[in-house]
Amino acid sequence: MVSDQPKFVYDFAEGNRDLKDLLGGKGANLAEMTNIGLPVPPGFIITTEACKAYLHGGAVPPELADQVTEHLGTLEKTMGRSLGQADDPQLVSVRSGAKFSMPGMMETVLNIGLNDESVQGLAKQAGNDRFAWDSYRRLLQMFGKTVLDIEGGRFEEAFDGVKSRKGTTADLDLDADDLREIVGKYKGIIKEETGREFPQDPREQLDMAVLAVFDSWNADRAILYRRQERIPADLGTAVNVQAMVFGNIGENSGTGVGFTRDPGSGERGVYGDYLEDAQGEDVVAGIRNTVSLTDLEKINKECYDQLMDIMSTLERHYRDLCDIEFTIERGKLWMLQTRVGKRTAGAAFRIATQLVDEGLIDTDEALQRVNGAQLMQLMFPRFDEAATRRQIAKGVNASPGAAVGKCVFDSDTAVEWNDRGEDVILVRRETNPDDLHGMIASRGILTSRGGKTSHAAVVARGMGKTCVSGAEEIDVDLKARSFTTPAGVTVKEGEVVSIDGTSGVVYLGEVPVVPSPVVQYFEGTLPADSDELVAAVHRIITQADNTRRLGVRANSDTPEDSQRARRFGAAGIGLCRTEHMFLGERRKHVERLILADEDAEREAALAALLPLQREDFVGILSAMDGLPVTIRLIDPPLHEFLPDMTELSVAIAVKEAKGEPVEEKDRVLLEAVRRLHEQNPMLGLRGVRLGLVIPGLFGLQVRAIAEAAVECRKQGKDPKPEIMVPLVGAVQELETVREEALDILAAVASESGVDVPALIGTMIEVPRGALQAGEIAEFAEFFSFGTNDLTQMTWGFSRDDVEASFFSRYLELGIFGVSPFETIDREGVGELVRIAVEAGRAARPDLHLGVCGEHGGDPESVHFFHEVGLDYVSCSPFRVPVARLEAGRAAADITGSDTR
Amino acid sequence: MVSDQPKFVYDFAEGNRDLKDLLGGKGANLAEMTNIGLPVPPGFIITTEACKAYLHGGAVPPELADQVTEHLGTLEKTMGRSLGQADDPQLVSVRSGAKFSMPGMMETVLNIGLNDESVQGLAKQAGNDRFAWDSYRRLLQMFGKTVLDIEGGRFEEAFDGVKSRKGTTADLDLDADDLREIVGKYKGIIKEETGREFPQDPREQLDMAVLAVFDSWNADRAILYRRQERIPADLGTAVNVQAMVFGNIGENSGTGVGFTRDPGSGERGVYGDYLEDAQGEDVVAGIRNTVSLTDLEKINKECYDQLMDIMSTLERHYRDLCDIEFTIERGKLWMLQTRVGKRTAGAAFRIATQLVDEGLIDTDEALQRVNGAQLMQLMFPRFDEAATRRQIAKGVNASPGAAVGKCVFDSDTAVEWNDRGEDVILVRRETNPDDLHGMIASRGILTSRGGKTSHAAVVARGMGKTCVSGAEEIDVDLKARSFTTPAGVTVKEGEVVSIDGTSGVVYLGEVPVVPSPVVQYFEGTLPADSDELVAAVHRIITQADNTRRLGVRANSDTPEDSQRARRFGAAGIGLCRTEHMFLGERRKHVERLILADEDAEREAALAALLPLQREDFVGILSAMDGLPVTIRLIDPPLHEFLPDMTELSVAIAVKEAKGEPVEEKDRVLLEAVRRLHEQNPMLGLRGVRLGLVIPGLFGLQVRAIAEAAVECRKQGKDPKPEIMVPLVGAVQELETVREEALDILAAVASESGVDVPALIGTMIEVPRGALQAGEIAEFAEFFSFGTNDLTQMTWGFSRDDVEASFFSRYLELGIFGVSPFETIDREGVGELVRIAVEAGRAARPDLHLGVCGEHGGDPESVHFFHEVGLDYVSCSPFRVPVARLEAGRAAADITGSDTR
Repeated sequence: MVSDQPKFVYDFAEGNRDLKDLLGGKGANLAEMTNIGLPVPPGFIITTEACKAYLHGGAVPPELADQVTEHLGTLEKTMGRSLGQADDPQLVSVRSGAKFSMPGMMETVLNIGLNDESVQGLAKQAGNDRFAWDSYRRLLQMFGKTVLDIEGGRFEEAFDGVKSRKGTTADLDLDADDLREIVGKYKGIIKEETGREFPQDPREQLDMAVLAVFDSWNADRAILYRRQERIPADLGTAVNVQAMVFGNIGENSGTGVGFTRDPGSGERGVYGDYLEDAQGEDVVAGIRNTVSLTDLEKINKECYDQLMDIMSTLERHYRDLCDIEFTIERGKLWMLQTRVGKRTAGAAFRIATQLVDEGLIDTDEALQRVNGAQLMQLMFPRFDEAATRRQIAKGVNASPGAAVGKCVFDSDTAVEWNDRGEDVILVRRETNPDDLHGMIASRGILTSRGGKTSHAAVVARGMGKTCVSGAEEIDVDLKARSFTTPAGVTVKEGEVVSIDGTSGVVYLGEVPVVPSPVVQYFEGTLPADSDELVAAVHRIITQADNTRRLGVRANSDTPEDSQRARRFGAAGIGLCRTEHMFLGERRKHVERLILADEDAEREAALAALLPLQREDFVGILSAMDGLPVTIRLIDPPLHEFLPDMTELSVAIAVKEAKGEPVEEKDRVLLEAVRRLHEQNPMLGLRGVRLGLVIPGLFGLQVRAIAEAAVECRKQGKDPKPEIMVPLVGAVQELETVREEALDILAAVASESGVDVPALIGTMIEVPRGALQAGEIAEFAEFFSFGTNDLTQMTWGFSRDDVEASFFSRYLELGIFGVSPFETIDREGVGELVRIAVEAGRAARPDLHLGVCGEHGGDPESVHFFHEVGLDYVSCSPFRVPVARLEAGRAAADITGSDTR
Repeated sequence: MVSDQPKFVYDFAEGNRDLKDLLGGKGANLAEMTNIGLPVPPGFIITTEACKAYLHGGAVPPELADQVTEHLGTLEKTMGRSLGQADDPQLVSVRSGAKFSMPGMMETVLNIGLNDESVQGLAKQAGNDRFAWDSYRRLLQMFGKTVLDIEGGRFEEAFDGVKSRKGTTADLDLDADDLREIVGKYKGIIKEETGREFPQDPREQLDMAVLAVFDSWNADRAILYRRQERIPADLGTAVNVQAMVFGNIGENSGTGVGFTRDPGSGERGVYGDYLEDAQGEDVVAGIRNTVSLTDLEKINKECYDQLMDIMSTLERHYRDLCDIEFTIERGKLWMLQTRVGKRTAGAAFRIATQLVDEGLIDTDEALQRVNGAQLMQLMFPRFDEAATRRQIAKGVNASPGAAVGKCVFDSDTAVEWNDRGEDVILVRRETNPDDLHGMIASRGILTSRGGKTSHAAVVARGMGKTCVSGAEEIDVDLKARSFTTPAGVTVKEGEVVSIDGTSGVVYLGEVPVVPSPVVQYFEGTLPADSDELVAAVHRIITQADNTRRLGVRANSDTPEDSQRARRFGAAGIGLCRTEHMFLGERRKHVERLILADEDAEREAALAALLPLQREDFVGILSAMDGLPVTIRLIDPPLHEFLPDMTELSVAIAVKEAKGEPVEEKDRVLLEAVRRLHEQNPMLGLRGVRLGLVIPGLFGLQVRAIAEAAVECRKQGKDPKPEIMVPLVGAVQELETVREEALDILAAVASESGVDVPALIGTMIEVPRGALQAGEIAEFAEFFSFGTNDLTQMTWGFSRDDVEASFFSRYLELGIFGVSPFETIDREGVGELVRIAVEAGRAARPDLHLGVCGEHGGDPESVHFFHEVGLDYVSCSPFRVPVARLEAGRAAADITGSDTR
């Protein structure tokens, strides 16, 4: 090969696992296995660069053909026979292999090299006619479907036709003649569909298959998949060409898959399945029953021992759980694939600590082997595994959790039953925005259509509600108010089901729910050494705490939640909302405040609220004794404390229509509701604007905070209140509020003789606040990013309105990879955060920076907040452990924030 | 003076007009006049640096006293007598003088140097007892009020007490003895209020007055004024100390003010008033009738000629209209002040062209002498000056225009009368958010309270509605439904008034309204040489067109508006909204579209709309033949085309309550209204989101545009459609819409055989769109900044909701200097525009950039758009000339964008 030619083909022996960009994931691992001396059938990889050159230029690069010829020659030399050789054909497989596994692409064509002539040679060499014709049949079928793009049903029809003529349904009942007949039919289909014969030239077969792999990179499904998964469109795919080995060539042959540890539980010891006299696809198809991998010892001790050695080698080499595929051909073991294996959440934690104990990885690396999403899964309540249960269906695990309730089939019923205290599961074919109230009223949602991006799935995840979607096997009859399973079970309205949003399984009747042992550990009711899983979580979270730079606080409005947050490891309250302190019994004071005509009346209403607010703050500051508590001044518009305009209008109009008397107070109320009504309350008179417009409102709250702090101090406690002003977009807003607040703090200090310092800071939650952060920082001791509102305003959509109406469509179109309310949108919202952090710190180097939007507890987002340099994240108490873990992971590996 | 001392005091002869930062505006001009040899009473200026040092350090800089002594010495030497000298006292005035004129500050103390002893000397020297005691009286009053901070009413009370005892109301009826008595009383008040005697030491008087000027920089009113006017808080003020001259020292004395041309009309020739035997404050107070400045020629020919010479010198020197203040003391003319004079809009245009003709300025500079706000004023319809009219009140000119209508005194009545076709003027004490519907229904608004930042003023300006606010002399009686003027005129509900929002004057009865000659000129119905004003506008707008870099387009949705825009000079349509094309008769198709259960039904609704839309576009493209027309695909949420939820709910509930039948179609409609109801429609399913969720909706519009263009082409026209996608925040949104649009354009081209190219671009109106502009530019041939929505989302408030509820409060607090919906917020919204322009151009150098928010026609904003590098602005047709003018001004003077 001339040295200045681009190198488009690599022999397995030339690659390694670090070359995934160039060789794809599968190829890089095959190369790695080859290089550590494992028995891998010889082969070569056509690089992603070749694919890109082809896709870009519209033609195969001219150098490719020669390079393939050269490497094919090496393969043939190793195997001692050539591709398609008539009397003893070498067969090869062609497999796609991108950097990231992509279900949208062409995957495999086996047995390339067979044709009308070499099938005879194969039969003779194998001493097995049936095997040879079955292999040819498989080639035609795969080639026809994936290379020639013929509808797969056409082949299956022909196959089934022969079977039914023979009166059988089992493939194995077909003999060589039957298969020869099928081959004839398949060739006819190919001629008919493509207008030309199936190519008899083995090299033409190979070249066509390679091109088909290249082309499949741009198939619609692949494009959609990439968009949804945010995989760059220009990576291209590699193509693996490998000598075929056969597990279906008689009793001394077989095929299997395995894991080096149990991927379900994390138990030590190999785990897998073996199937004698079969090809890999037969294992997947589940046509015959497999045996456990450990049974291979009895079948072929030599191969078994060799496999155990190899699996041990792979695990030490990859320093992680590996999964493998292998074939035994006439007693010889061949390794066909390996990769780091997927595992359950519990297994991930157990395996990570096992590997540390075995000296294979250090504790920092252990942190990278688990993630917050897994920890979250371990914290959901689960169905009691010991309980008897009856699975009746399985769907998509759309939103995790375990929910039990009576089935209802429409949203109005869900609301009605929930109102009278019943737990319900809303069952629908699919949900739409009309079902929102029903979804809110239900414990869980079960649908028969739609996947992880369906309306039900997206909205349920947004609500944190358990959901199983797309349980296609159930037949929902809305008229009859029931659903039926294929097994004939009919579940009527009012009957109880249990749905597992983590696994997607639906059970009949009530399955008892047990609390998560991990939560019990965090709560302190289960010791760290109670079992291997809890011990693993304990070790890893401890490592995370020792590693992380980010502080973790909780969002909490009550003493109870605050105590829980503290147990879960929160180092303070990052967001204490004060809205609920105006609800319930206190609503009457707010109404009085709103309806006040005169200053005196308004001041009286505020005065009535003061002792109540003070009491609230004493409770929270006491619960968080010694830790900071960031209290946000009232944010929502006042009309939220009044009745709904439409409901009140209807109630009054109906009374009038019936000639019934309408109370004057209701009329006054309606007038106030109308006056305060806003077209877009999210963009209305709220936050700091409210504080500047309603005299005394913020003042009341600041005084309540100051007096509560004094009271705590008098009780010997160490209160650390921080006052947070919401919705600031202009520095003058904060300046004005701050001035008043400082006066009140000084007044309370002088009245009480006790001086409790309180920081004053602001939310950064409107885009302008971020853009003006440098100016604002001069009057703020801290910033807390309100990424919920910031996301709403940066994108220009409100969560309440759009999750139901277009998020599922947007996820489907790949406009979002994930809802920007779940994971922070780095490019848009994140950019504003970055701008604000830089400008804020430049203006005030000791500015304390945190985030209190829901993103504070989202794994991927925590990494972003670490990278951008915040001091802490604040999230719901339940998410505190997740944030601690991810903050540790981010600090341990700041080079890669990918939490996939 | 030691040379390394900071120089805190400048003699007038040491300064010039370019030193306004250091010497303040008044001081710099006094220095300038001194240096060009005009007769200015000698004096010196204490610099803004001295003020800043004092304010910063809390004490007068130690060097100041000596420097004042030194310069005072020079003054005394020039005048030949010393400060407060007992037998012949030199008196001085102390005046504040900041860089920008600031009404919140202390202004003047005259006659410093008088005390119980020197008043006698003054009397003897002047030969006028009364004059001396009146001067002392004035000193005590001014000093008491402004230096010692005593409530002015106390002095007036004492003064009035003596007058009423003497049975007179005229100051001139008081003799020397009376004034001596008043001096005694004033000294008593000062003792009583401050606990010490009035300082007899002239230098102490001077020093105290200087400090009072310094302190007045931080008076509450001054701070508020600065905040509102966006004047930096750290400029400080200078202090002018000047030898007193007296116009009230007998018949050969007097005082006057003048303009070098008529500031009202722009007529050539001096203009002003003169008052014999008086001080400047008497002219302002209007106690006696002044004579015209030209009459001075008869009174004192010598001084008159000298003054004419000086005025001519000043005008040539300043190359602009100047206003002056002067005093004649015993036949000698003294110049006390000059500055470039304020003038009316019409005068500005006429004077600018006069000065060009006189060779004093060039045409580029003429552009800087006028501005868009003035041009706008000239374009409002005005009351017929020839018509008889009866002024009954005057208030604040809060929102320009001329409105005539019947008075109503509450908003419900305004709506009711307007609904039956009557023009109404809403009269209130003040308005509040409850009055919004009434304001919308009225031709104009008249209030008796509140200034330019009152609720009525802010909201009216936002609506472009005529408003006179704060007409304090009228007494509004809401119960009687009438208002009364001081002259006793009572106007009842239903009686007609005419209000002039440009001047603030209120007339009784109907005053005929005449169209603006300037508009008639733009319309082409009045020739450019019809009068001097029109000729001036013509010359200046022509110069602007020749100078400007920015293109000017118009926002227009109809052929009629488009034609008008073209006449007004628009080079295309920058925003053609398509919403109205779904209203009226067509609403039924939209309802059908919304209620469609099935694809076929939806497609039928769309098909019905196609020919209608096509016809619309043919109309507009024809009107703008040869010029680009940017058509925005439908933006508002669909529920805007359905009835109001509350109204429909009430209507149905009332029918039900009365037992009347409810049509099924109404129930179905209510269900749809509920389903589509959004909490925050501004942040809901609209714009590109709607296009992606409703199949075929955008497609319909694109097809209608393409077919319309083909039809125009077939008629021999040159259509230039541009397709604009609203509300894009993510590049994938645009990519998806663009793909579909290109397919449709190609399809129409191939169906018709006519290929009309159409650019495809996007609005940048959500913050994320600006932040992602680089990515978005790859799929956009143009950007149009939608600064209305961008302002709403960047600040996080919706115009509809907040202008009424808190803008007046924000303007009052100085959080806004001007509504960000009127003038673009440079720091926040402008920053996003800047980011987007840079990223967009970097990604696509030929990206065409414009703005189509209402800011496109705002003078100050046009300068910003010029600076930031846009290609064009687009505004309402009526604003097109304003935008042309300001675009020219911006290009002629890119160093200063200040349009004040």
